[in-house]
Amino acid sequence: MKFSVLTIGDEICIGQVINSNSAFISEFMTNIGYSVYMHSTVPDDAVIMKSELEKLISGSEVVIITGGLGPTHDDITKGVLTEYFNDELIIHRETLSYLESWFESRNRKMTDVNRAQALVPSKSRVLRNRVGTAPGILFDKDQKLVLALPGVPTEMKYIIQNDFLPIATEFFKKYSDSVQLYLTIKTAGIFESNLADLIGKPDEFPEGANLAYLPSAGSVRLRIGSRAKSRNEALNILDKMKQHIIDKAGKFIIGYGNETMESVLGDILKQKKLTLSVAESCTGGLLGEWLTRVSGSSEYFVGGIIAYSNEVKNNNLKVNRDTINTFGAVSQKTAIEMAQNIRSIFHSDIGISITGIAGPEGGTDEKPVGTVWIGISNERETTAKLYNFGNDRLLNRERAASKALELIRNLVLEL
Amino acid sequence: MKFSVLTIGDEICIGQVINSNSAFISEFMTNIGYSVYMHSTVPDDAVIMKSELEKLISGSEVVIITGGLGPTHDDITKGVLTEYFNDELIIHRETLSYLESWFESRNRKMTDVNRAQALVPSKSRVLRNRVGTAPGILFDKDQKLVLALPGVPTEMKYIIQNDFLPIATEFFKKYSDSVQLYLTIKTAGIFESNLADLIGKPDEFPEGANLAYLPSAGSVRLRIGSRAKSRNEALNILDKMKQHIIDKAGKFIIGYGNETMESVLGDILKQKKLTLSVAESCTGGLLGEWLTRVSGSSEYFVGGIIAYSNEVKNNNLKVNRDTINTFGAVSQKTAIEMAQNIRSIFHSDIGISITGIAGPEGGTDEKPVGTVWIGISNERETTAKLYNFGNDRLLNRERAASKALELIRNLVLEL
Repeated sequence: MKFSVLTIGDEICIGQVINSNSAFISEFMTNIGYSVYMHSTVPDDAVIMKSELEKLISGSEVVIITGGLGPTHDDITKGVLTEYFNDELIIHRETLSYLESWFESRNRKMTDVNRAQALVPSKSRVLRNRVGTAPGILFDKDQKLVLALPGVPTEMKYIIQNDFLPIATEFFKKYSDSVQLYLTIKTAGIFESNLADLIGKPDEFPEGANLAYLPSAGSVRLRIGSRAKSRNEALNILDKMKQHIIDKAGKFIIGYGNETMESVLGDILKQKKLTLSVAESCTGGLLGEWLTRVSGSSEYFVGGIIAYSNEVKNNNLKVNRDTINTFGAVSQKTAIEMAQNIRSIFHSDIGISITGIAGPEGGTDEKPVGTVWIGISNERETTAKLYNFGNDRLLNRERAASKALELIRNLVLEL
Repeated sequence: MKFSVLTIGDEICIGQVINSNSAFISEFMTNIGYSVYMHSTVPDDAVIMKSELEKLISGSEVVIITGGLGPTHDDITKGVLTEYFNDELIIHRETLSYLESWFESRNRKMTDVNRAQALVPSKSRVLRNRVGTAPGILFDKDQKLVLALPGVPTEMKYIIQNDFLPIATEFFKKYSDSVQLYLTIKTAGIFESNLADLIGKPDEFPEGANLAYLPSAGSVRLRIGSRAKSRNEALNILDKMKQHIIDKAGKFIIGYGNETMESVLGDILKQKKLTLSVAESCTGGLLGEWLTRVSGSSEYFVGGIIAYSNEVKNNNLKVNRDTINTFGAVSQKTAIEMAQNIRSIFHSDIGISITGIAGPEGGTDEKPVGTVWIGISNERETTAKLYNFGNDRLLNRERAASKALELIRNLVLEL
């Protein structure tokens, strides 16, 4: 049973906004068991939208549309749907009174533009949006579902996770004759092609299983999939395939599913009852930000110093002034002092430091842009390693933070 | 003259990876002057890929494909293109010797899988990839360009910005009969519908101009566009439309184009020769990370303390233990002490603090999840404001950091 995602909006088409809605919707539908037909993204153009809508409806059982439901003149979705389903717009009373109280509670005046958001096609079902003003609109016709959602991510997610979840689940149970399931396996410390050599070709996989490789900065994710008549059968194939990967490449696996490097690390730190602090220069807080994305990270993450200027490195992080003058702020010795000192100043078990040249300015022949020292300290020893993460400022900050997580994990696993 | 983007890969289709490549490519093509036809994203399925490719080629002059060029069995792009263009794969000598030296310089053994990356369709032109192993492949036929690129963002960007840039520019000059240009205007402090009321309807706009509204957390971006026969004419219309917006809603404008809140703020801080430090609790380093995304931010950003634990708030940020015990870590008084103290400890002109309950745990009736105090301090005064940014952990951290930037900007503009 297939689904498609149709995204409406010039802002996505011209690259002003990254299309994160499609990813969210696809993950949601895939978790229920749906397979994907495709995603289309079209500008605010009724003719193109209608032709894509027709194609997606013919190729899939569920089409989810986002965008073009807002209150301004460039929003076309309702008009196209009304025309496609030979319908007419009517005032939806419940939505109108919700809107009235929404504006009243915010002390905002309701305009005609706002009031028009209560207009919906008469043959559609309204899905409530309690975090914004545009409701979801659902057509259920000829064993197909067509759902239109606002493009604002929080509103789209609210409707999907509330009113739409039971509808999509019920529809799948009623009409689906096969289940497609996925599991992601995260690896680190090995290249994609070497991993492919270890794991082998598809003819060595359990029947009904498939595999995709997904390389990113510093790690390769494996996505294993299975398709079967029932959920149990699909789970069984997925388990066999997971075991195949563990047998072939187990030592490179760092986590499963939605686990991130920071959540995996967090679990290990909690289990070993260890605490962590960070001293960040070129990453400016990125490593701390990642670590604290994990809910419950306060159990092991104490805090850190963003030592962006040399004065802070010296005055607050207590890096020796001579060290900075003699070896530079981006040096092994500075990285070591930063890691040691953050650990002792913040009373944590482990201290980690990152100091580097993020670029585009500041590089020299000896220390080109991308040069980064990462230091790590525990009660037994402090070491620092040198890396070069390339020319792109934002990317090399990410690579540095990512490598730092890997180093902490490796150390903690040994302790 | 139109372009399309075709993204290949199950990982995008099932939502495992967000499609940021399409945004990058679209922004790149739009800046040259191309208009968008549409984006399609299809799974690793040769039949669907081929049918989409046909559609996109018929609807646009340039089709850019990303993904499916990797070394593993799930990569289908080369096969589909070879079939579509009635071509055959041959070894590209230059690519092969590049690959050999690439692997040699990294002390890695080259496998058959790697060697196969030097196979390219005989009628295509090879665009160099110097940051990875899969080259770009370009077909130039019947006044259409079809370009296949690797899906890894750094590699895709490298090829686009190097070999492809002059080709796309030349092709546009040769065949285009109209130019489409865009400018983004960022606003803050006003809602989308109120902004729409101020700016008025399309019939009040200068001829040839158009406008789209793009609301996001805490701000609305306006995208103005113009289409004309020549670049000069298009620029002229864009200027008139910009003036129209300034006349109608000038006081809500905070920046233009690729300017971000943090880059705009950075410019003001530099101009006023003011320095800034941060004390972050629930945001864990996010505000520091944003501020240091701006190249050259070391001129005004000194650093900060990530005071995630109460011990760090007390020992290192010198927040009074009584304050925390009496009022709590998330309180006006704590926020004020954090902002005051970071400013004095780090010797900066301005200190900003964020302390809140990011969730999902830790909320109470009195201080629900999303409660955030933001403090701001300069030599004259220190104040703190209370916000509630909602239930979503990551989103309310972003909203808090975003609001902090806005508060700093407002303060600095007054100084």
